[in-house]
Amino acid sequence: MDRYKIIISYDGTLYAGWQVQKTGIAIQPLIQKALATILRSPTDLTGSGRTDAGVHALAQVAHFDAEHPITDLHKFLVSLNALLPIDIQVQEIHPVAPNFHARYQATGKIYYYHLGLSAVTNPFTRLYRTQIFGSFSVERLKKAIPHFLGTHDFTAFTHQAHKGTASHDPIRTMQRLDVIEEEEGIRLEFEADGFLYKMVRNIVGTLCDIAQGKMEAGQIPEIFALKDRKKAGTCAPPHGLFLVHVKY
Amino acid sequence: MDRYKIIISYDGTLYAGWQVQKTGIAIQPLIQKALATILRSPTDLTGSGRTDAGVHALAQVAHFDAEHPITDLHKFLVSLNALLPIDIQVQEIHPVAPNFHARYQATGKIYYYHLGLSAVTNPFTRLYRTQIFGSFSVERLKKAIPHFLGTHDFTAFTHQAHKGTASHDPIRTMQRLDVIEEEEGIRLEFEADGFLYKMVRNIVGTLCDIAQGKMEAGQIPEIFALKDRKKAGTCAPPHGLFLVHVKY
Repeated sequence: MDRYKIIISYDGTLYAGWQVQKTGIAIQPLIQKALATILRSPTDLTGSGRTDAGVHALAQVAHFDAEHPITDLHKFLVSLNALLPIDIQVQEIHPVAPNFHARYQATGKIYYYHLGLSAVTNPFTRLYRTQIFGSFSVERLKKAIPHFLGTHDFTAFTHQAHKGTASHDPIRTMQRLDVIEEEEGIRLEFEADGFLYKMVRNIVGTLCDIAQGKMEAGQIPEIFALKDRKKAGTCAPPHGLFLVHVKY
Repeated sequence: MDRYKIIISYDGTLYAGWQVQKTGIAIQPLIQKALATILRSPTDLTGSGRTDAGVHALAQVAHFDAEHPITDLHKFLVSLNALLPIDIQVQEIHPVAPNFHARYQATGKIYYYHLGLSAVTNPFTRLYRTQIFGSFSVERLKKAIPHFLGTHDFTAFTHQAHKGTASHDPIRTMQRLDVIEEEEGIRLEFEADGFLYKMVRNIVGTLCDIAQGKMEAGQIPEIFALKDRKKAGTCAPPHGLFLVHVKY
């Protein structure tokens, strides 16, 4: 058996998320099926983690095993992409050690969330940016950022995960949460050793509530302490969110 | 009556083009309907020209008349956009002289055409870039460019226009045809005093045929001289094409 790592870009707009769901088309089974076709053998594809319905990935990482070594990796990549929808395309393939594991060996992840703050929506980024209407103070948002940095119990910023997939340890370390100005708004860059279910979207929603004057930055320490999801802000919509990088 | 000029961005992916068609939803009637709703009066919207089904616009220009002056232009813009689909959004509105005419007074246009030349398709630009597979020589393409510059009878590079909309004068002056390198391919920038029906797409298709070795740059003068559409190259697909600017 030879193990391979693939790096996948997908536009999540049309999909029910990475993992197989009761309804809708999921991304992982589609790639798995294409791999099985090309390898002529049932194949398991293990991703670095799930992304929710409507969330995008610039570089999701996954691994699979092939019974026989793949001799021409470029040709394999082209054939695999030809079997995939054009909104899911494998960008790279690399041979890895047999003990490489896309999920267990991930040491951190980077997510971006794009907020549109222009008066008029740009039709070309509408699927990749959450447009904000009304008053929004980037300064207020920035003042709330330090509360999220460092090691915390993020229970207040997660939803109950799907059955059987719950991470029982809600402690995560946020190494970086940067606010980058973009042409039509801002981009929030999250870097942590791991993320709980819907954690980025719940933090973004809370930051937006603060920027819009619905909450105060000073409330955040109490929200962390109470570990109560209901005390935190709204959950931001999925389409502004991108999985950008998985660290190993 | 007060006349207003609007500048519109639209993602043409889902539309049958600017002008009303027998089938599919067209862009101009949608905006016209929104204007009629907001102005509470039937309203005609006249664009600078058509764009075909699937073609995008960063800045299509159009004009309409309002019975009463619009007092708050920003508020009007926000209300109008709220009535429009999110993939068609008016970016600007300006009062203009009563004799301003979006079509007759246009003195030139700029179109961009995006070609993807990377080995792997980027899912996020798939709707806005025509992906090329196989060998493609940008150098060969560049050598063909000078043949298109200047004043020519572009009959060989147009299709028969829709009934009643034919421009009987096929002479156009191409002021600029630049090849700009982009991250995943190239962008062709066309600037001319006007464009015939499908002219950009037919030139792009011909340039691609040359870049792929199916035609020679040296054939172009003869194609111009013969004025025969069948001698020119293929017609490039609509989704790589953007109307970028209308000059007045």
